[in-house]
Amino acid sequence: MTEQLRIEEAVERLIKAEDVLLLCHKNPDGDTIGSAGALFWALKALGKRVAVLCADGIPARYGYMELVPFTGQFTPRFTVAVDVASIQLFGDSIRDYTRQIDLCIDHHPSNAGYAGETLLDGEAAATAELLYRLIPAMGVQLTPRIADCLYTGLSTDTGCFRFSNTTANTHQVAAGLIGSGARVEELNTILFESKSRERIEIERIALNQLEYHFDGRCALIYLTREQIAESAVQLDELENLTSLPRMIEGVWVGLTLRQQPGGSYKISVRTDKGVDACAIAQRLGGGGHSRAAGCELEGNLANAKAAILAEVERELTALDKASEAGGEA
Amino acid sequence: MTEQLRIEEAVERLIKAEDVLLLCHKNPDGDTIGSAGALFWALKALGKRVAVLCADGIPARYGYMELVPFTGQFTPRFTVAVDVASIQLFGDSIRDYTRQIDLCIDHHPSNAGYAGETLLDGEAAATAELLYRLIPAMGVQLTPRIADCLYTGLSTDTGCFRFSNTTANTHQVAAGLIGSGARVEELNTILFESKSRERIEIERIALNQLEYHFDGRCALIYLTREQIAESAVQLDELENLTSLPRMIEGVWVGLTLRQQPGGSYKISVRTDKGVDACAIAQRLGGGGHSRAAGCELEGNLANAKAAILAEVERELTALDKASEAGGEA
Repeated sequence: MTEQLRIEEAVERLIKAEDVLLLCHKNPDGDTIGSAGALFWALKALGKRVAVLCADGIPARYGYMELVPFTGQFTPRFTVAVDVASIQLFGDSIRDYTRQIDLCIDHHPSNAGYAGETLLDGEAAATAELLYRLIPAMGVQLTPRIADCLYTGLSTDTGCFRFSNTTANTHQVAAGLIGSGARVEELNTILFESKSRERIEIERIALNQLEYHFDGRCALIYLTREQIAESAVQLDELENLTSLPRMIEGVWVGLTLRQQPGGSYKISVRTDKGVDACAIAQRLGGGGHSRAAGCELEGNLANAKAAILAEVERELTALDKASEAGGEA
Repeated sequence: MTEQLRIEEAVERLIKAEDVLLLCHKNPDGDTIGSAGALFWALKALGKRVAVLCADGIPARYGYMELVPFTGQFTPRFTVAVDVASIQLFGDSIRDYTRQIDLCIDHHPSNAGYAGETLLDGEAAATAELLYRLIPAMGVQLTPRIADCLYTGLSTDTGCFRFSNTTANTHQVAAGLIGSGARVEELNTILFESKSRERIEIERIALNQLEYHFDGRCALIYLTREQIAESAVQLDELENLTSLPRMIEGVWVGLTLRQQPGGSYKISVRTDKGVDACAIAQRLGGGGHSRAAGCELEGNLANAKAAILAEVERELTALDKASEAGGEA
């Protein structure tokens, strides 16, 4: 089992470390890259040899961090996993470097404790929020570049301060990062105000196939494997399309059906407060959270649609009955 | 000319005031309603009679503020304009109540000084940011309801902390409002994660007519007056559609052509850093800012498109030449 560290202990380990390899999770997001990036520049400031490794590479959109990717240019003597909740999330292609993780810095309460030692803050909205305390404790100044990296992690993990994980402290940290010179205008444009042509195309296709059900309380979009393949959209851009149907006013349940390469349909269920997405998905063998859940169904589109719509109807009918009963009481 | 007040002087006026009418600007946004809402509840806490008046009414989406609209239920003895930069912005239908404005509280540097006295903070991202200082100075506690109102103003005027007006202080205020009990999760859903069915429909139509020009450096959408009328989309939702074409990766110039009831085309030009939107619009008799400008052209769609695309090409060619010259130097 991993040893839980205090900030000062983690600082001690990092200050002693030499030839440091920083590991990100696969399908990298702004927090794993931004947090690794901030630590990269902090360790550089202390004169150390350091590089960043991610199974899927460092996405081009984070080019402004100017990180050095690990390509075997030194033999790592200290390995730090950043924002990685479990060992499965590293990705198989970098397995040679994930056998012994000396330190893990993370904010996921579910962290599996796979590292030798772990610095965990389950209350933090992003690993970047934790590093905002750690880096100054290392005696390193928050330069504009480090602030850019931390702002990237903080803003992407909170949907630019929209998600429910955003706390007063998240905003305090954002204020501090702006004070340290983070270029928030440029970063926000890169991170939140850009969509690929492929994403725009798949959105067009999805909107052309949008359906409303149950007096507009349910909206459904679907995409066949041919449409997904033809659009050439990346997986992460396809993932966040699932928020679209729920976003429509009056919609309580938003459904996104995406055909998988094998032919089955992966269904994302997103709901408004008060409608249990997990209950809907579970009855079809899936699972998830109360407002975001999913399941996968074999068979053709018509079958998949009929099955999920029947469960949505059941849930909405139950809610109607409960509200009628409440009205009578 | 208006008298510029310090916070303490404005506090003095408000504490003395009785039967207060709070005025918002027409086409109301979250800052004018949220700031008036916060002041409404602060004055209520001081035991005063107060109501809110807006030429276009208080939009239903702000229902959670539970404001009392002014319907002539008392004779106003003190009138306060909130977040209104000039007298034209009140709207003609409430002209009876805008003849004498005792106090104006605003954050627009361009404030025309039409009120008897003005409390202005041109550095604040939102009027709500200024009220965050004013209300405690009135001796009123920031209740969760007041915090909800102020968060609404702060977050909507900054595009949820994305726009360039967002400062360290903006985030500090957001942190303080969360500490005071603002229900940010619910508010963010209402304010930023919902689109009307009409808006979704007009987006579908626009995407089906999306065109790329000049190697994908320019993206163009257009909407005819019939399409706009059939979709029944509200003007404010149509307005923010203009950010769509510029958002596409690789696009330097995003153009939105909307046919007006009279038949002419209103053109919005949105550009990336480095491309002068105003220069493009000005050559066709329009104007605006360096990255957001517009003009209006008579004639049919083909003519309007040809005219604006010719000016975009001219601008892009000039940039190419400048960059070649820079390369040779």
